[in-house]
Amino acid sequence: MSGTIYGIGLGPGDPDLMSVKTHRLLTNAKHVAFFRKAGRKGQARSIVDGMIPEDAVEFAMEYPVTTEIPLTDPRYNEILSGFYEEVTSHLIDLAKSGEDVVVLCEGDPFFYGSFMHIYTRVKDHVPTEVVPAITGMSGAWTATGAPITWGDDVLTVLMGTLDEDKLVSHIAATDALVIMKIGTNFEKVIRALKAGGKFDDAYLVQFATMAKQTCMKLSEVTEKVTPYFSIIVVHGQGRRP
Amino acid sequence: MSGTIYGIGLGPGDPDLMSVKTHRLLTNAKHVAFFRKAGRKGQARSIVDGMIPEDAVEFAMEYPVTTEIPLTDPRYNEILSGFYEEVTSHLIDLAKSGEDVVVLCEGDPFFYGSFMHIYTRVKDHVPTEVVPAITGMSGAWTATGAPITWGDDVLTVLMGTLDEDKLVSHIAATDALVIMKIGTNFEKVIRALKAGGKFDDAYLVQFATMAKQTCMKLSEVTEKVTPYFSIIVVHGQGRRP
Repeated sequence: MSGTIYGIGLGPGDPDLMSVKTHRLLTNAKHVAFFRKAGRKGQARSIVDGMIPEDAVEFAMEYPVTTEIPLTDPRYNEILSGFYEEVTSHLIDLAKSGEDVVVLCEGDPFFYGSFMHIYTRVKDHVPTEVVPAITGMSGAWTATGAPITWGDDVLTVLMGTLDEDKLVSHIAATDALVIMKIGTNFEKVIRALKAGGKFDDAYLVQFATMAKQTCMKLSEVTEKVTPYFSIIVVHGQGRRP
Repeated sequence: MSGTIYGIGLGPGDPDLMSVKTHRLLTNAKHVAFFRKAGRKGQARSIVDGMIPEDAVEFAMEYPVTTEIPLTDPRYNEILSGFYEEVTSHLIDLAKSGEDVVVLCEGDPFFYGSFMHIYTRVKDHVPTEVVPAITGMSGAWTATGAPITWGDDVLTVLMGTLDEDKLVSHIAATDALVIMKIGTNFEKVIRALKAGGKFDDAYLVQFATMAKQTCMKLSEVTEKVTPYFSIIVVHGQGRRP
């Protein structure tokens, strides 16, 4: 009997916002796998601190490269692809030997998540199940204290890594807006928001749902933003009785 | 001491996908409020069947109109607005008398949810807290067995109630796509997907995460779709190593 590989969404960061199902899989886990940067504890692993059994076997999948090689370099895809093959063959072996494995996923696994690189490589070999979760952006718009969308508002989700022209056209065409992956793209995103006419209505949420959560008007941001945990939110203004 | 009004997201439908926090608030609730159509049990109330304490006081907030009066009729907003004032004044009274109240919200309260009509009317009078949840669309894309977005895909969320021209331009401009509120707009949405070049890649998910869940290519749909619980999903095809 083969075990199952579970991609479990951990949600935006507050353990209280995990699903009942994810919580149960975590607290009963025998094998726990997670991505991390070499030399770091790993964000996903940190979220579950104190929740997984002490005798669970941990499998840290350490990225061979993150930002050292540009995305455009052909070696980037080659190195990452080899890495994914290596870690997934270990996960498949574990499952084939009858062990269930939970793979920790920040946010929702199928929403810009790194689990998809595992999923596409294991799903045809062993039983696989994905547990959805609250997205980081849900945590962010909840932090602003106002609904992100009303009535028939259009919502657009953009990555700060996009070209400036593409950012501007999508920003101008939408009602409600979420921008993620801001990091080193912060200045470009600011220019695009101004050109798209939404800068004055934008909020910056950092560390949504976590103890360090902050939320402010983007126009009032003076300090350096956190590269990884920053989400920009612009609320829709749709129909409301 | 005032009580708190909690808008608790129930997620897409499977009780196992509620957050730990929502689950705890539900199983300890003394007052439970929820919207429903007159003469119906109510979808939100059905999801929590067997979970709330037997002696909890239930407050069914029955919509005075839903589809009987067109949205464009000025009486529509007037009647609904009066209804929201009436139910929220009851909730505020309960909270001011020291009682906590949980308001059941399908999906995520701040994402096209009806809780916002309560929230905007109570938040300046009594303590209010919103508990985010897994969205119906997360349940839907998880059901398709493939990631909705990769790399720097653009995701657009559209309501089927939008004008056909607006639907087409947004459908054509995005990578990944979610369409909700399909119901009576089904034929218009189909035409817009064809004109926007995404009909062949679209999936229709009905009753996501529930026992009755179905998922099929939109092009293979032959039966009538469920008006309320249908979500159309088109996956992004972004960068992947």
